[in-house]
Amino acid sequence: MPRIRFLPHEREIEVEEGTSLIRAALEAGVHINASCGGTGVCGKCRVLVEEGQVEGGINEKLSQADQEKGYRLACQAVVQTDLQIRVPVESEMDAAVLNRPASPRRKAHIQQVDLQDFKEKGLFLPPVEQRYLEMTPPSAEDNSSDVTRVVNALKLQHHEHGLEVDFYVLRKVVDVLREEDFKVTTTLARPVHEDGKTGIINIQAGDTTSRNFAVAMDVGTTTVYGQILDLNSGEVLAEYGDFNAQMSYGEDVINRIVHAEKGNGLEELNQAVLKTINNVIRRIIKKAAVDPEDISTITLAGNTTMTQLLLRLNPRYIRRSPYVPACTLFPPIKAHELGIELGDHVLALVYPSVSSYVGGDIVAGVMGSLMYRSEDIMLYVDIGTNAEIVIGNKDWMACAACSAGPAFEGGGMKFGVRAEKGAIEDFSVDPVTLEPMILTIGQEKPIGICGSGLITMVAVMFEEGIIDNRGKFNRDLKTERIRENEGIWEYVLVWSEETEVGRDVVLQEPDIDNLIRAKGAIYSGCTTLLSEIGLSVADLERILVAGGFGSFVDLEKAMTIGLLPEMDPGKITYVGNGSLMGAKMSSLNNRIRRDVVKVTKKMTNFELSETQSYMDNYIASLFLPHTNTDQFPRLSQRLAAKKKEA
Amino acid sequence: MPRIRFLPHEREIEVEEGTSLIRAALEAGVHINASCGGTGVCGKCRVLVEEGQVEGGINEKLSQADQEKGYRLACQAVVQTDLQIRVPVESEMDAAVLNRPASPRRKAHIQQVDLQDFKEKGLFLPPVEQRYLEMTPPSAEDNSSDVTRVVNALKLQHHEHGLEVDFYVLRKVVDVLREEDFKVTTTLARPVHEDGKTGIINIQAGDTTSRNFAVAMDVGTTTVYGQILDLNSGEVLAEYGDFNAQMSYGEDVINRIVHAEKGNGLEELNQAVLKTINNVIRRIIKKAAVDPEDISTITLAGNTTMTQLLLRLNPRYIRRSPYVPACTLFPPIKAHELGIELGDHVLALVYPSVSSYVGGDIVAGVMGSLMYRSEDIMLYVDIGTNAEIVIGNKDWMACAACSAGPAFEGGGMKFGVRAEKGAIEDFSVDPVTLEPMILTIGQEKPIGICGSGLITMVAVMFEEGIIDNRGKFNRDLKTERIRENEGIWEYVLVWSEETEVGRDVVLQEPDIDNLIRAKGAIYSGCTTLLSEIGLSVADLERILVAGGFGSFVDLEKAMTIGLLPEMDPGKITYVGNGSLMGAKMSSLNNRIRRDVVKVTKKMTNFELSETQSYMDNYIASLFLPHTNTDQFPRLSQRLAAKKKEA
Repeated sequence: MPRIRFLPHEREIEVEEGTSLIRAALEAGVHINASCGGTGVCGKCRVLVEEGQVEGGINEKLSQADQEKGYRLACQAVVQTDLQIRVPVESEMDAAVLNRPASPRRKAHIQQVDLQDFKEKGLFLPPVEQRYLEMTPPSAEDNSSDVTRVVNALKLQHHEHGLEVDFYVLRKVVDVLREEDFKVTTTLARPVHEDGKTGIINIQAGDTTSRNFAVAMDVGTTTVYGQILDLNSGEVLAEYGDFNAQMSYGEDVINRIVHAEKGNGLEELNQAVLKTINNVIRRIIKKAAVDPEDISTITLAGNTTMTQLLLRLNPRYIRRSPYVPACTLFPPIKAHELGIELGDHVLALVYPSVSSYVGGDIVAGVMGSLMYRSEDIMLYVDIGTNAEIVIGNKDWMACAACSAGPAFEGGGMKFGVRAEKGAIEDFSVDPVTLEPMILTIGQEKPIGICGSGLITMVAVMFEEGIIDNRGKFNRDLKTERIRENEGIWEYVLVWSEETEVGRDVVLQEPDIDNLIRAKGAIYSGCTTLLSEIGLSVADLERILVAGGFGSFVDLEKAMTIGLLPEMDPGKITYVGNGSLMGAKMSSLNNRIRRDVVKVTKKMTNFELSETQSYMDNYIASLFLPHTNTDQFPRLSQRLAAKKKEA
Repeated sequence: MPRIRFLPHEREIEVEEGTSLIRAALEAGVHINASCGGTGVCGKCRVLVEEGQVEGGINEKLSQADQEKGYRLACQAVVQTDLQIRVPVESEMDAAVLNRPASPRRKAHIQQVDLQDFKEKGLFLPPVEQRYLEMTPPSAEDNSSDVTRVVNALKLQHHEHGLEVDFYVLRKVVDVLREEDFKVTTTLARPVHEDGKTGIINIQAGDTTSRNFAVAMDVGTTTVYGQILDLNSGEVLAEYGDFNAQMSYGEDVINRIVHAEKGNGLEELNQAVLKTINNVIRRIIKKAAVDPEDISTITLAGNTTMTQLLLRLNPRYIRRSPYVPACTLFPPIKAHELGIELGDHVLALVYPSVSSYVGGDIVAGVMGSLMYRSEDIMLYVDIGTNAEIVIGNKDWMACAACSAGPAFEGGGMKFGVRAEKGAIEDFSVDPVTLEPMILTIGQEKPIGICGSGLITMVAVMFEEGIIDNRGKFNRDLKTERIRENEGIWEYVLVWSEETEVGRDVVLQEPDIDNLIRAKGAIYSGCTTLLSEIGLSVADLERILVAGGFGSFVDLEKAMTIGLLPEMDPGKITYVGNGSLMGAKMSSLNNRIRRDVVKVTKKMTNFELSETQSYMDNYIASLFLPHTNTDQFPRLSQRLAAKKKEA
């Protein structure tokens, strides 16, 4: 990877070829003024390429003279080789802060499944497997039934025992056997329990063993993601996500349940999510160009409400104390019985849940991340409107859910947006001029702030003393960017002319409040759960972060605001969509499907709302990073260093 | 029971009160001329009541003088008390044969299930049982899921383990639990294998344990019989039979298969039998006045073709050598998936078969009669158009099928009719005058001859020398009843004026031929099967006769014509509709359902058409009773005695 050296900061970083210079600077902790989000409009991010080659970086905002000297716009220039980049120092004040310790940008490393390793460990044993059979046609000496012939061949040719035949296979067997002279491929569904029966769920003429596919699906409150998996290679052939059509009946699970309680509401919600699921399935089948006949299973994971709405189980008591779900373990069901448009033979495997608010999506994350086999004590946290927390290891687990509100998804903010193009996702500020460095997703004109951008902004501003530990702007700072507007204090991120929306894009104190409440709910959830099981934050050895927003989050910033407990970022892993990952992993590995029953029994659920200390912990968390800064020693050290310097 | 003494024959018999005198005479082996079938029209059956009381027996055919002397018409007089009856001797010739040995009339005793005994032996364990639960409602301390609550209650209150929950129950559980304050009744379906799971297939509010019903059904080629059973008492609450609507597509299984191979034929046949099944179910539910919600299972037994048509499995290869069925063991299937109109929770249990021509109806008979637990070597024979034979005991079984043709069902005869009102079902002949004594079903005007009547007639005429061992009439006998008509010899059973049909009802030589071929097919099937397993007729210790026609058959007569091997009639049991009985028995006893898998594996099937000796044995059987009369020692003895006397 190309290595970039920033001067006069003397900071070095390795980035992938094709990264923009401005992103490389952000990751190196080097501030460059940039207020347009990286679209090349403000022209402020002039840098001098002293050594090496970049591509682009020239537009009308850069004078002919500058171009000839080797200046480029950092947001428009793309890394090609090793580089030495000099950032112009516009003032002495700027120079003075050059060597102030900047908090490093640390993204969690992303959990990847190493399929080869998976196979070598013998873990690649899908719940459905195919077996090819060549049989002798019936004769007067052996006129046993067609099914007996198949079952015997499976015994003799593949040592398969304890078989039971699905009714669907009965209806096909007579014709399929004779289609290619008693050469067939059977699809076997493995039992959940080792002593259970293996089901023969499909039979196809000829050798089709090279074509065995599965669908893995995350049924989220907001979005439904599906993947089509090749069960021979383990590869994802296609993936697609779509908004859950239930959105029109309410944004969150509570509103969905309220709707389900009205007249035909449950039926409507069930049909809505099926519509989305079937659309996602159609898309991925088309993208992967597989024959639907060759798909054997669909594994679905979702929170408890989504799961009940999918199965059409009355969710009424999920939202009423004492919060009782209909069911936590689901039997294998024929997909078509659920209304899922896949072949009549396809089994739907639905992820079990733990409680009304710790659902199959979380269990899937715990299984798919292999947390359930960890020796270390881990914290698994799925960050979203509803946040779920699991703490434990292979021997025990405790879990809880809390309501964080929509802050992490860009909700409840004046300029909050989802993580879409034009959303401000990264931010830095010049400690002296208080001028921002802003990067938007896709480097398009700013439209607003997404969840991860908000965390970074609040963390940076807090560390730079622009906001205090209650999230209030320092009223004494001299910059036109901080102002009072209709009684509300705000910081102008982007002036209207550089935005897409034609208004100043601002961060307001209520937005910060919102974030503090959200992170407070999660952090206090962790500490409450820890104290319920007699542990403290210091006992955590690793953290797994799940959730759609997670991949953009700067972990160090998440610790700075007190969302995550402080820890060596190397011990934090981002699992992304844990629900989808779990659905995928158990599509590839029946052992996970077997273990999950034991794991859900092991997962002790705590109802935070019923726990007295939760409210106290919550209130203590409504500061940056927390009332008790002892829990954030590294941040305290950095703040102390800055204070000293000042 | 009243005892009746016939004079001058000096024969006594006990009969039930309400029996007609003419039937009592027939059973006692006393001949009384009677040619009108017992309708009181011919007036020939005048008898003198010397002691005791009869009801009726007087009509215009009896003179005033005779009435006053105490004469009555035997066909119209009903037994009320012990009686002494004198049969008028019209001629000296009659008197001469009074004391000739008459073959006794022996009906097989009918197999009855003694429910009390069944219960005492611990055999009354239906495959579906109900368990009532009273649970504590959810609380903050215990907010486990609704299903977990039910499963735990089953464990704690009823020691039920290894449970799995049906999807149908998931959809109901939330509302049902709260309907009567967490008091519910669960319906448990027991596994086929002891180590299998018990399924929770239904859940109802409150205590419904007093209402648990099952349907048992025989799906026959011609008729479909259903029973509704009370699983608490074991009693049959209602029964109904209807013609299989498939009849319009062909009378026998071969014609049905031919139709199934045409275009939409399989679908049509499937729909036809479902129509009949659903009609029978509606009728018995209505008759028994049960709530369909309280029905838990339907057990179905039928021959292999009927089973495949019911399940919509292509039957094409059943009728083609080497006669391969689709399947012999059927998994439990939801009744509604088959198109059976019962609740969504109802399990359809389909009787397994052995081969293409030894089907679930026969297996049901073997199970229901408990032949499979017998120490004695038994012959089970189901007599019909297709006859099935099973020989064996608890340790081994051999089986085969043969085509007998329709003779036993009154088919292929000039005056053949089904066993319906007006069918001649019993017959005796005066050895001197050759005048008949005829009794019809319902003592209505004769319309024709049913299968059991035919057997009796042929047996009697053979023993009296009216026909020879090739089934030909003795051309030398002096009676106007034996005549040649358009080249065919026949015996006039009823003159036209005494019939319902307005023509002379006759028995013709081709009718006798037909019967001989039919009985020959069955008898040679038995002997072939016996020789294949190294046994002979003498090794048989008991016989079970199944089939719709069986209850009317005079066993001694069946032995006389060589249909059944000769044996003490006390060792012959009539099981009636073995298929229905088996369906009923396994509805009441899950052990039978478990055992049946082992039993079907134990039943070795022989294809008679592929067995060289079968044709030889068949040809040897085309005599009355058989070429080899050594196999019929009792009959030989009687014939010898008659010869001597003559």
